[in-house]
Amino acid sequence: VRVEIVAVGTELLLGQIADTNSAWLGEQLAAAGVDSHFHQAVGDNHARIVLALRTALARSDGVIVCGGLGPTQDDITREAIAEVMNVPLVRDEEIVARIASFFVARGRTMSENNARQADVPEGGSVIEQVQGTAPGLICPVGNKVVYAVPGVPYEMAEMFERGILPDLRRRLARSGEESVIVSRVLRTWGTSESALAEALQARIDVLDGPARPEGTVTIAFLASGIEGIKVRLTARARTDDEVVGLLDAEEQAVRAVLAERLGDIVFGLDDETMEQAVAALLVERGLRLGLAESLTGGLICSRLVEVPGASHWLAGGVVAYESAVKHRVLGVPPGPVVTEVAAGAMAQGARTVLGADVGLGITGVAGPDTQEGVAPGAVFVGLALPGDRLVTREFHLPGDRPRVRQYAAISALDLLRRELIDGG
Amino acid sequence: VRVEIVAVGTELLLGQIADTNSAWLGEQLAAAGVDSHFHQAVGDNHARIVLALRTALARSDGVIVCGGLGPTQDDITREAIAEVMNVPLVRDEEIVARIASFFVARGRTMSENNARQADVPEGGSVIEQVQGTAPGLICPVGNKVVYAVPGVPYEMAEMFERGILPDLRRRLARSGEESVIVSRVLRTWGTSESALAEALQARIDVLDGPARPEGTVTIAFLASGIEGIKVRLTARARTDDEVVGLLDAEEQAVRAVLAERLGDIVFGLDDETMEQAVAALLVERGLRLGLAESLTGGLICSRLVEVPGASHWLAGGVVAYESAVKHRVLGVPPGPVVTEVAAGAMAQGARTVLGADVGLGITGVAGPDTQEGVAPGAVFVGLALPGDRLVTREFHLPGDRPRVRQYAAISALDLLRRELIDGG
Repeated sequence: VRVEIVAVGTELLLGQIADTNSAWLGEQLAAAGVDSHFHQAVGDNHARIVLALRTALARSDGVIVCGGLGPTQDDITREAIAEVMNVPLVRDEEIVARIASFFVARGRTMSENNARQADVPEGGSVIEQVQGTAPGLICPVGNKVVYAVPGVPYEMAEMFERGILPDLRRRLARSGEESVIVSRVLRTWGTSESALAEALQARIDVLDGPARPEGTVTIAFLASGIEGIKVRLTARARTDDEVVGLLDAEEQAVRAVLAERLGDIVFGLDDETMEQAVAALLVERGLRLGLAESLTGGLICSRLVEVPGASHWLAGGVVAYESAVKHRVLGVPPGPVVTEVAAGAMAQGARTVLGADVGLGITGVAGPDTQEGVAPGAVFVGLALPGDRLVTREFHLPGDRPRVRQYAAISALDLLRRELIDGG
Repeated sequence: VRVEIVAVGTELLLGQIADTNSAWLGEQLAAAGVDSHFHQAVGDNHARIVLALRTALARSDGVIVCGGLGPTQDDITREAIAEVMNVPLVRDEEIVARIASFFVARGRTMSENNARQADVPEGGSVIEQVQGTAPGLICPVGNKVVYAVPGVPYEMAEMFERGILPDLRRRLARSGEESVIVSRVLRTWGTSESALAEALQARIDVLDGPARPEGTVTIAFLASGIEGIKVRLTARARTDDEVVGLLDAEEQAVRAVLAERLGDIVFGLDDETMEQAVAALLVERGLRLGLAESLTGGLICSRLVEVPGASHWLAGGVVAYESAVKHRVLGVPPGPVVTEVAAGAMAQGARTVLGADVGLGITGVAGPDTQEGVAPGAVFVGLALPGDRLVTREFHLPGDRPRVRQYAAISALDLLRRELIDGG
């Protein structure tokens, strides 16, 4: 069973709001084992909504239309569905009464426009509204189906789960396709997409090859800019247990290959961020961190504070943007401040001033101008670790000012992560 | 000229990433006077990309395809375009050399996969890559056109502006449709969307009314969460000069109404950020700023460092996340640290320790837990201003931990902005 998503609303085409509904629905459909090969967005125009629905029905078994069910004149999804079905709209007086009671409960009067929301294409059935005023629709078109839900995200989500998903499951069961699809993402930092692809090519060839076993896993790469590169494992099987078993085995295999070929590049799973990975290691080792930031200007500290419970392992930071602050507050010796030595001194200063166990210092040139003769993109990181161990590192990072700062932040956190693992 | 956007990537269908590219492109196309009636998203599958492109070409004059130009096996947009054009792919050795030099500059070796990025459908031309490794494509299909750009947002945006927009403008000029649509955005902080709408209702009624003059301006409101509410003025006219004249007049009228009804709520124009507004005022008054942040954890400092030339007016900051750091480094007197008094002491401490003219201190509770009996969302800001003037303020901010921190940062910056204006 293949279902296409059609989002209705001129504001989507104009980029005034991002289409988060389609992403959410796509995720839910995949998890339910329903294929979704295409999404469309279309404006509030009758002929174009009709065309989008016909296009979708031509290449899929069903359509979920989102939006255009409201009370205003540009809410015309009902009319478009009726044209595609070639039937008239019939007003459902039970729905009218329910909408009216919604208004009464809020001490307001229902306008005639609101009654339009009770119009149902002949032969269709409704998904009753419980939150807003618009009901959803389930409209058969031959042996295919058009589902319609409001564009308000929480109304859409609630109706999908209550009205659409059970109907889809019945269709899947009838077609014998019922299955579970789950993805798991390994998050990496410190390598390129092509190096990852090469390292995993032998594994991918097996999975994609002619001998590919039923219910196996696929591997894909998602370059995510300043958040690194994601390796996504997707498994499809008949039951939840089978899918989890497949993913566990594949994750282990992929981790082993990556560790052998590329080292400690996997920092997290799914939504786990680099700062969460660092936080977990600090907690595990019972260490408190103090920061001294120059070009990142508080970005690293701010990312770490985003982790709930940061007060247990984060002392704080000094943003020594001005050289004088580096010397006076952090005790960096006189001399150049865009060097590995300065980064090391900043790290030691942060540890001392903030009373922390681990100090991280970072200095460099975000650009656009050079500083002390150093070109933009040069970044120096120092780590003052327990046992008076000092580690310093030089990075050369690409991009403009915001990107250099973002790359610098995650590179520094990744260096700390690796040192905490190695030093553990 | 109607242009359809086709976003390529299975991760879009699965909802693993939101399709921000299509929204951005839709906004740019509208601003250029190009109609975009449909968007599609499709997975990394050859037959389906071909079908999506053919569907788009059947109902539009051109297509912008986003994504699938990378070096891996599932990047197959080039092959799909070649099939739609019914031509072979030809490797462009100049592009190969440019990709190779990109790798040499980073001390890495180019893999064979990367050379695939130099494949161009016969008859197509390239938009040279300047940031990543994949060039864009301009491919004629009969009298229609397929543009292809990488899915990485900043590469996509740069290529759109440099390669696609000029080509589209030529097509618009040829079809005699050229008109200029320009939007200007007034950015506000500190009021609600309904208050803005009420203040401007009389003006909107004139613009939308039956007596609406040709080439007039429309006003719209865009709630932008942690970046405030935008008031967007959009004008359409025959020439650049006419459009600018319309916008200048309307901006003046809107600013006058807002200043009279709601005070100093407009902090910037278009992409101007709150930190840029603050930076301009500090530069104008010849003042250096020092920060002491608790719950925001370096976020304010980091936003300010984003402004080029920050070293001229920003000394640095102390992230006093731990109470001990507040007392020891900033000299905050013993006692509770989530109060207006503590915020004032932090501001004075920041000014002294960092040798600044203006100190900003911020403390509060981001949540999820209470602190010192204070509920999440309570935020206290102190400003130590020249002439030993101390200003403190209490805010109650909505949302979860990340939103409270973001709202706290912009609220503090806005308070500083207003005090710099009033004290100027």
